[in-house]
Amino acid sequence: MADADETTALIADMGARARAAATTLAALPTATKAAGLRAAAAAIRSAEAEILAANAVDMQKGRDGGLSSAMLDRLLLDPARVGGMAAGVEAVAALDDPVGAEIDSRDRPNGLRLTRIRVPIGVIGIIYESRPNVTADAAALCVMAGNSVILRGGSEAVASNRAIHVAMAAGLAGAGIPADAVQLVPTTDRAAVGAMLKADGVIDLIIPRGGKSLVARVQAEARVPVLAHLDGINHVYVDGSADPGMAERIVVNAKMRRTGVCGAMETLLIDRAYPHAAELVRALAASGCEVRGGPGLRALAPELAATTDIDWDTEYLEAIASAGLVDGVEGALTHIAHHGSHHTDAIIAEDAGVAERFLAGVDSAIVLWNASTQFADGGEFGLGAEIGIATGRLHARGPVALEGLTTYKWVGRGTGQVRG
Amino acid sequence: MADADETTALIADMGARARAAATTLAALPTATKAAGLRAAAAAIRSAEAEILAANAVDMQKGRDGGLSSAMLDRLLLDPARVGGMAAGVEAVAALDDPVGAEIDSRDRPNGLRLTRIRVPIGVIGIIYESRPNVTADAAALCVMAGNSVILRGGSEAVASNRAIHVAMAAGLAGAGIPADAVQLVPTTDRAAVGAMLKADGVIDLIIPRGGKSLVARVQAEARVPVLAHLDGINHVYVDGSADPGMAERIVVNAKMRRTGVCGAMETLLIDRAYPHAAELVRALAASGCEVRGGPGLRALAPELAATTDIDWDTEYLEAIASAGLVDGVEGALTHIAHHGSHHTDAIIAEDAGVAERFLAGVDSAIVLWNASTQFADGGEFGLGAEIGIATGRLHARGPVALEGLTTYKWVGRGTGQVRG
Repeated sequence: MADADETTALIADMGARARAAATTLAALPTATKAAGLRAAAAAIRSAEAEILAANAVDMQKGRDGGLSSAMLDRLLLDPARVGGMAAGVEAVAALDDPVGAEIDSRDRPNGLRLTRIRVPIGVIGIIYESRPNVTADAAALCVMAGNSVILRGGSEAVASNRAIHVAMAAGLAGAGIPADAVQLVPTTDRAAVGAMLKADGVIDLIIPRGGKSLVARVQAEARVPVLAHLDGINHVYVDGSADPGMAERIVVNAKMRRTGVCGAMETLLIDRAYPHAAELVRALAASGCEVRGGPGLRALAPELAATTDIDWDTEYLEAIASAGLVDGVEGALTHIAHHGSHHTDAIIAEDAGVAERFLAGVDSAIVLWNASTQFADGGEFGLGAEIGIATGRLHARGPVALEGLTTYKWVGRGTGQVRG
Repeated sequence: MADADETTALIADMGARARAAATTLAALPTATKAAGLRAAAAAIRSAEAEILAANAVDMQKGRDGGLSSAMLDRLLLDPARVGGMAAGVEAVAALDDPVGAEIDSRDRPNGLRLTRIRVPIGVIGIIYESRPNVTADAAALCVMAGNSVILRGGSEAVASNRAIHVAMAAGLAGAGIPADAVQLVPTTDRAAVGAMLKADGVIDLIIPRGGKSLVARVQAEARVPVLAHLDGINHVYVDGSADPGMAERIVVNAKMRRTGVCGAMETLLIDRAYPHAAELVRALAASGCEVRGGPGLRALAPELAATTDIDWDTEYLEAIASAGLVDGVEGALTHIAHHGSHHTDAIIAEDAGVAERFLAGVDSAIVLWNASTQFADGGEFGLGAEIGIATGRLHARGPVALEGLTTYKWVGRGTGQVRG
């Protein structure tokens, strides 16, 4: 067990340095953090050649190792992607700083003035897979919210991540941000992930960024709190009162705009009272989607493939959707309660009462009325860049942006008050 | 392992019923929840004889089993305590309902209107020890915030808890609150605690109410998120600029008003530049406190007992305090960073710049300037009754009251928006 002990000690040491840096970082003014991030972005641009050379090493290793073309595409950097990464860091530097904001204040009858102010969480661990841009994105968001970050990227992107990290760290340090505020786990040993997940008290929060197997492992093993979503089994319910043109536009967009994003529709629920069910699923099919229908719906559109039980619990993330008839909004609520993943669900309806029943009754992070589920995104919500979407119930729900990377403290200012 | 399986199945079944009840509860108007709690309070008053008879059984068993007098006192109910319990439930019914409150709203350029509204968390588990009043207090707070609750009280209070629960459940059900909204684990088997702690996805949040060994077990074993504090190693730092009279009043109050509460001062840090250190510790000693001094302080007040290393990390919860000299506010910050428990720390100072440095630099849930640490209490903060004090960094920090028992969801209302 010497290796496991060594890895645990490594994470503990990185965590202690991250904690010390976080103490400094928590007190830095917005302008210093923003200047640090702009310097990091400039350093990324300056290091383009080194970053691309490192990425070429990862790409060669990936091709030799038989990575899929999808994984190679996620791994690939080119000048445009390096520029985009730098621009992303600059965009974070321009966001409103949540730290120090007053959440509420109250004057007590005894004269004690209490305020609740936002403060950084402390030390955040990011565990991610093949996309090297996460190194820059996640680091920028954590630093802007005053947190230290411990980054653990995928082994397939190790050279790229190191090159990006070296550039950012130099940029940040040159602008007065503590060097230990952004650390990259130097080993690609899988045990490092385990050590991070168990580093309760060392790391305050873990955010996994990657596929379902990564998120599932993190959720199963973590002793540290986790913000994440495992699934996005998102529903669009088309009520009997829906406008047919709007229903078609939204359903096709929710499924087909990008099929691989977590906000994509996976299940279409149609009110038995909706008179245009067959046209709707035919329009979806005509957009290039394989529509699998339940029995009631196949009676109306017999050309549909049949759903099996597993379809209703499947996040396809491709051009496939399950579709079925339900008994009005209550039927939709029952279906979503059984099969949903608390991510994003939408209703298309002209009847406001029915819509409000749906918005109140669906227990998901995001509920939408007459809008596409593909809006499930921090940028679309006006929050700036997001670090992820959370479907748990505590701390932050839905898109997690800068505010989700903070906590608060109570500050009381008195004039000598003692308790009676 | 049949027993463990049975216990797991029991908790899963209770959790499923609690989830169904939570769905109903989440949609209830404030008036219905408040009426339900008033009915529960009335039922507690009406059942005074049954509750006292049950408590007499627990008390007899406790005396036979050799419970300490302190534990017997916690367990004891009398007419005044039963009345106080009912009044506590009525007080919760009178609090502002956090559910449905709009946290923020924003209109997007595409016309999508986004609001973030408070919703109940869902199913909350309360694990507690000998005080039977927690049965009523915790249930009332959970229900008012729209949550179902699964209560697991101490085996020593089993008859009392059952009698209180029977009364409350009857009162709630008579007023239209689902019966499964408040459930008491029927077994006192310790395995039930383990099953609750591992019921991830069944129970959304666990709040332990009890001594340090209970909290430590919950924190060590829980797979479900926990809100709690393990220690309250609270510091009062007396700056060189402090008003001597105020310093003395606050220090004596912070330590001695009630020594057994988690907001009590445990460590007194005195600025080396403070000219009245000896008088201050003598005043504290004169109030009945054993003061253990560090070397520098004992040079000024040689009559003090000496601290050992362990004192600085000890939550005495009795009339003992450790006291030492530090080098100004920076010395205090360093000491608190090493020995504090992120609960409540205070500075006594006339110098506002020094005070603000302390308030910003101490990483605790509650930081106070010129006020006693004994104010660390939801009621004193104007939050109404609290379910506990949390020293973790996520979701809620400091006193956890109704708002801390809620989460939020994003609600978007559109007019047919699709994402480009």
